[in-house]
Amino acid sequence: LTVRSDAVGNIYGTRAGTNPTAHPIIFGSHVDSVPEGGNFDGPVGVFGAIEVAHTMREQNIVTAHPLEVVVWQNEEGGTWGSHLVTAERITPEELATISRSGSSIADGITALGGDVAGVPSARRTKGSAHAYVELHIEQGGLLDKEGLQIGIVEGIVGLRQWDVTIDGFANHAGTTPMNDRRDAMLSAARFVEAVNRIVRAEPGRQVGTVGRIQAFPGAANVIPGRVVCTLELRDLNDAKITRLYDAVRAEASRIGARNGTTFAYKPLVTHESARCDERVRAVIRDAAGAQSLTTKSLPSGAGHDAQNLARICPMGMIFVPSVGGISHSPKEFSRASDITNGANVLLDVVMRLDALTLA
Amino acid sequence: LTVRSDAVGNIYGTRAGTNPTAHPIIFGSHVDSVPEGGNFDGPVGVFGAIEVAHTMREQNIVTAHPLEVVVWQNEEGGTWGSHLVTAERITPEELATISRSGSSIADGITALGGDVAGVPSARRTKGSAHAYVELHIEQGGLLDKEGLQIGIVEGIVGLRQWDVTIDGFANHAGTTPMNDRRDAMLSAARFVEAVNRIVRAEPGRQVGTVGRIQAFPGAANVIPGRVVCTLELRDLNDAKITRLYDAVRAEASRIGARNGTTFAYKPLVTHESARCDERVRAVIRDAAGAQSLTTKSLPSGAGHDAQNLARICPMGMIFVPSVGGISHSPKEFSRASDITNGANVLLDVVMRLDALTLA
Repeated sequence: LTVRSDAVGNIYGTRAGTNPTAHPIIFGSHVDSVPEGGNFDGPVGVFGAIEVAHTMREQNIVTAHPLEVVVWQNEEGGTWGSHLVTAERITPEELATISRSGSSIADGITALGGDVAGVPSARRTKGSAHAYVELHIEQGGLLDKEGLQIGIVEGIVGLRQWDVTIDGFANHAGTTPMNDRRDAMLSAARFVEAVNRIVRAEPGRQVGTVGRIQAFPGAANVIPGRVVCTLELRDLNDAKITRLYDAVRAEASRIGARNGTTFAYKPLVTHESARCDERVRAVIRDAAGAQSLTTKSLPSGAGHDAQNLARICPMGMIFVPSVGGISHSPKEFSRASDITNGANVLLDVVMRLDALTLA
Repeated sequence: LTVRSDAVGNIYGTRAGTNPTAHPIIFGSHVDSVPEGGNFDGPVGVFGAIEVAHTMREQNIVTAHPLEVVVWQNEEGGTWGSHLVTAERITPEELATISRSGSSIADGITALGGDVAGVPSARRTKGSAHAYVELHIEQGGLLDKEGLQIGIVEGIVGLRQWDVTIDGFANHAGTTPMNDRRDAMLSAARFVEAVNRIVRAEPGRQVGTVGRIQAFPGAANVIPGRVVCTLELRDLNDAKITRLYDAVRAEASRIGARNGTTFAYKPLVTHESARCDERVRAVIRDAAGAQSLTTKSLPSGAGHDAQNLARICPMGMIFVPSVGGISHSPKEFSRASDITNGANVLLDVVMRLDALTLA
């Protein structure tokens, strides 16, 4: 591979194809991790991609399309490396975003040896790649639980997050009778229960989570006058997210009316869902089948760089099992045999895509 | 009044009685407030007591028992002034308690001009006072709501507080299906709802509150693996508090079993309830009746210095209405006419107690 970094700080290892006018097949993942994270979320896809390139060289396999093994920078902070090369427009505000480290995205680019001013030069335009494929651990427990070997990703779920503020009236916990309370905590509790109930009320793989909560003033002897919590909804179907959100809001209004509290919502994050290309999914299915590996089609509940690459070319993802579905934890683990299967499928998929007309 | 401070920092204004062997009648309250508090919680009882002493001097009223008008120090931080003079034993650990200001109780005594080493000298022993009476605003809304003038306090409720830790399993909010979650937040929500339901399930004035809550790790995109919240229960009957606590724990066990979470309880604060002396209550009722004031017997949901004085002598409390039941807020308000009624009742109560044998 001929290795280079782009202005964003992404690393590319390129290998020429025989067709000088063909667009590259891109495959890879990321090597950064969350704090207190594991060793498989990301690296499996990067080392798998490098192994595929090694194998092609050892076996003297030559492709028509150029190949690009890629290591995207800062996936965990919000798929920044892949976002910055596939977005139609990058704003100065985006580059000034402060990450959990306290540094900005622009600072991160500089720290990685990139060139903030040159970020536009790293842009990959729509139609400039033949396809993108990413091998990754599932991070959920479906494959492991069912004893299956390869996950064929249907798409990456859409995600919406809100800050939910519940206002009641703070009062003395000793002198205020139960039926005179406008207790924001009680409404928050009924809200959390309602989110769970509404999300589970219909079939499908949608999920809803309240992950953060704070009561004000927040003392054991004061009835909370305000509670602020988060609401997160995810599904492969963005319309379903909107429908669930509407149902949650309607139920919250009823909850608020019961004890004189009000609910207000502030959008925090919105990620549209990204469908995997059906032809790439078929290629993954064929490759797994050719190796007699068991498969399952499933959505990715987590975000991935692949969702950004879907902006510019046909995209697909190959999952391998996560033991116990544990991720973002030092306990994250995937078996070597499963990772080997994934890398073998990736090799075959790249070769099959090389033979396919996708434009 | 002859004014002195004791080693604790309490202020006494004493007036001699005609009977040299009689124990004093003590009456007063406190002048400290909570941050962001009001102007009536405490001062009404202190200025009312001083006004009673003024009136007696103006009217040349002489009592058999000595009188002591008292201003207790640091009531809001935990009735410290009255506790330190009535407790059978004070430990160095108590004096080292750090208050919300960041200073210790011992530091506070010194700042008020007291003498930490001399605290034992301020001790008032059981039987060393004829009676204690405290005029105070209700802080609740019962008198105001019913348009009544004087509250005859039945007693000061017992209070127990716990830290409740709910453990589940933290996991990725995108990749973990709803039915594979051990969501500590969902259990916390059901717990808050259960506390409310159980406390309200029987008649009475018992109250239950969850005032503080925190989820860990506390991110919008992570299912909480742990939630810590408070539980507070109050009632005039300590046995009822224990019974409600047992019922809450039993229901929490069922809640935990539903989704693989566990509940653990750590006691934070326990205050036994303090009954007002029935003879002092009768005197308050008679005094209010003599002035044609409307009355209501009610428990005090809030703690007061009077609960500590109950350790050493017959104790009673006179409540005046709080408009809207608002307290510990700049909006706290009691009408001048209601405060005047309270001070007049206090004057009559002191004179009636002077004529009564209580020992």
